[in-house]
Amino acid sequence: MPTTVITNLTTLVTNDPAQGDGSPLGLIENAALVIEDGAIAWAGPTSSAPAADERYDANGKAAIPGFVDSHSHLVFAGDRTAEFNARMSGRAYTAGGIRTTVRATREASDEALSANLAAHLREMLSQGTTTVETKSGYGLTTEEEARALRVAREHTPETTFLGAHIVGPEYEGDADAYTTLVTGEMLEACAPYARYVDAFCEKGAFDGDQTRAILTAGKAKGLIPRVHANQLSYGPGIQIAAELGAASADHCTHASDADVAALADSGTVATLLPGCEFSTRAVYPDARRFLDAGVTVALSTDCNPGSSYTSSMPFCVAVAVREMGMTPDEALWSATAGGARALLRDDIGHLKPGSRADLTLLNAPSHVHLAYRPGVPLVAGVWREGVREV
Amino acid sequence: MPTTVITNLTTLVTNDPAQGDGSPLGLIENAALVIEDGAIAWAGPTSSAPAADERYDANGKAAIPGFVDSHSHLVFAGDRTAEFNARMSGRAYTAGGIRTTVRATREASDEALSANLAAHLREMLSQGTTTVETKSGYGLTTEEEARALRVAREHTPETTFLGAHIVGPEYEGDADAYTTLVTGEMLEACAPYARYVDAFCEKGAFDGDQTRAILTAGKAKGLIPRVHANQLSYGPGIQIAAELGAASADHCTHASDADVAALADSGTVATLLPGCEFSTRAVYPDARRFLDAGVTVALSTDCNPGSSYTSSMPFCVAVAVREMGMTPDEALWSATAGGARALLRDDIGHLKPGSRADLTLLNAPSHVHLAYRPGVPLVAGVWREGVREV
Repeated sequence: MPTTVITNLTTLVTNDPAQGDGSPLGLIENAALVIEDGAIAWAGPTSSAPAADERYDANGKAAIPGFVDSHSHLVFAGDRTAEFNARMSGRAYTAGGIRTTVRATREASDEALSANLAAHLREMLSQGTTTVETKSGYGLTTEEEARALRVAREHTPETTFLGAHIVGPEYEGDADAYTTLVTGEMLEACAPYARYVDAFCEKGAFDGDQTRAILTAGKAKGLIPRVHANQLSYGPGIQIAAELGAASADHCTHASDADVAALADSGTVATLLPGCEFSTRAVYPDARRFLDAGVTVALSTDCNPGSSYTSSMPFCVAVAVREMGMTPDEALWSATAGGARALLRDDIGHLKPGSRADLTLLNAPSHVHLAYRPGVPLVAGVWREGVREV
Repeated sequence: MPTTVITNLTTLVTNDPAQGDGSPLGLIENAALVIEDGAIAWAGPTSSAPAADERYDANGKAAIPGFVDSHSHLVFAGDRTAEFNARMSGRAYTAGGIRTTVRATREASDEALSANLAAHLREMLSQGTTTVETKSGYGLTTEEEARALRVAREHTPETTFLGAHIVGPEYEGDADAYTTLVTGEMLEACAPYARYVDAFCEKGAFDGDQTRAILTAGKAKGLIPRVHANQLSYGPGIQIAAELGAASADHCTHASDADVAALADSGTVATLLPGCEFSTRAVYPDARRFLDAGVTVALSTDCNPGSSYTSSMPFCVAVAVREMGMTPDEALWSATAGGARALLRDDIGHLKPGSRADLTLLNAPSHVHLAYRPGVPLVAGVWREGVREV
């Protein structure tokens, strides 16, 4: 396979403190990268770049690791424009919420679900995202949840079983009975297609005991736990995530001091989802507080048709800087290396010799422009496993 | 010139209440448009669309009038990444602010200024903006201000003389003397290249008397007044704008009840600039309050390298809905028809027979997706004066 050298990167973010300026981002100025067999073979100053079979002159652009979007809900059909429009226009709307999407998803063919997922993944790729985790959770029967994960697995290895998104409509009012289904035959059918198990721990969804039962059953099947935790109110979600060694506690909008300490002690990543607060006019989580306590923070889109229909990691970076007390450097790290941590992946989220060659070129001299130029489509090129895709 | 018909628009925003659903947006579903000689010749349902020489099947996309960005500062050189990064990272920075850009702009060649402006205009066009107003204000000498406007006029007819951006460095501490320059030889040199006259009415910039003198002198030279008003604090800017019949009072972040009433009575447009508050972590203006009082509201980017380096009207629409109490419909209207009002243009900002054929196609079934899908590059095509540019 031919080698490629990318030269004249004004700024290269390696996320490797052993490189460049020694900061967490490991910034190298006037940098070059060599790609070989889908991996980074070399990174350093352009002036000492080795020769390669192909040469791409980045001519003043910046390069960053491809974004790692570690939280999305992309196996769905339909959209919820009318519900969003009513919410933002202050009009009453008898919204079905998640149930609206459950109905549309159940009615869709495998082909339609797969095509919709593929379209969203392409949209993400064009915005610089090279790894995407996605979940079931709009099926809510054994058959439909397994179908969602089969479809998802065709597109990404990072799949999460979220049968416990809400209580399935057939079990309305009986969350315990639904939990028995989720931990039993549904898990059995879904585990072969999933890497993670997740539950929405929240008033009106699943309480602490139910969440613990679901994650514990998933772990017994070899799945890695993650939790929708403390999104709408204080609750036990974060503590359960820490206690069970979850890869990530996601949302974390309402966290007590004990919750923050539990994350710091356990090493469970706090995955913050600013698109969700943006699109629901909710209060933002205070990323500064997590960072100052030593918690690892990831940023992700939460892309879904209800509460956060953005697929844009650059947008999430800009909002995290504006609203969540993150510096531009921290937000970039969290959207790349942080996402990789939330997926327990050590091959992505950085650009050093041996890293997977997943990288995004920006029409900008540095990664700071992702926050400095909010909303502007800055992605100029994307390589995934060493292949130029955008 | 051949005629073109665009068919199968899921939603067409005409901004003509006489069309479609009769709302201010004049929405037509399953719509078609005919373009002839750079203008809209026909708009209506696809089922009754007339034949044309060329046919473009929009296949489920939405169309809106091209965005009218009525407030930008694009004749500049350099950028202010370091200042932005320090501000957002909570680090001290001995920023020169606007002066940093003045220095870089003065040092740049005409060709460099023109190329930078052209690059930003292309970036705007790719995001659906078909009309851009831009200003001088980084020269601050007679020669440099006139040069900036000469450069700007090569690219857009919507040029604004903003010699009164800040007091020029050569006049530091003597705003009165600088005002005499602005209203005298600087105005004389700049008026031939400008359509509007503007002043930054603010503590530390120009007071009410100075602002009134500058706008009045500009009016006497045939320029239309507009004002940077009430951005950082309460002050006389909005009242002066209303009193002098300005086309627009821009920013309006700190407005009293009397200010709101003055705008409603005078018909002066309130141009709100959410990118500025986003990028400076400032409080947002309450668009709802202006709208409820009957004030015409425009949305614009304020694109400039200091306080708002976004060029994205879709981003401004999304933030206006999230933060300023606008509905998705109102924000779309303000970013198109509102901008046209702020520029006293009646040929743009709408799509009805006779309108200039400036239109933007969205990869989305409706304009609501601009707010529903924040940060996602949704622009699928742009026609300007009937010519497809993107």
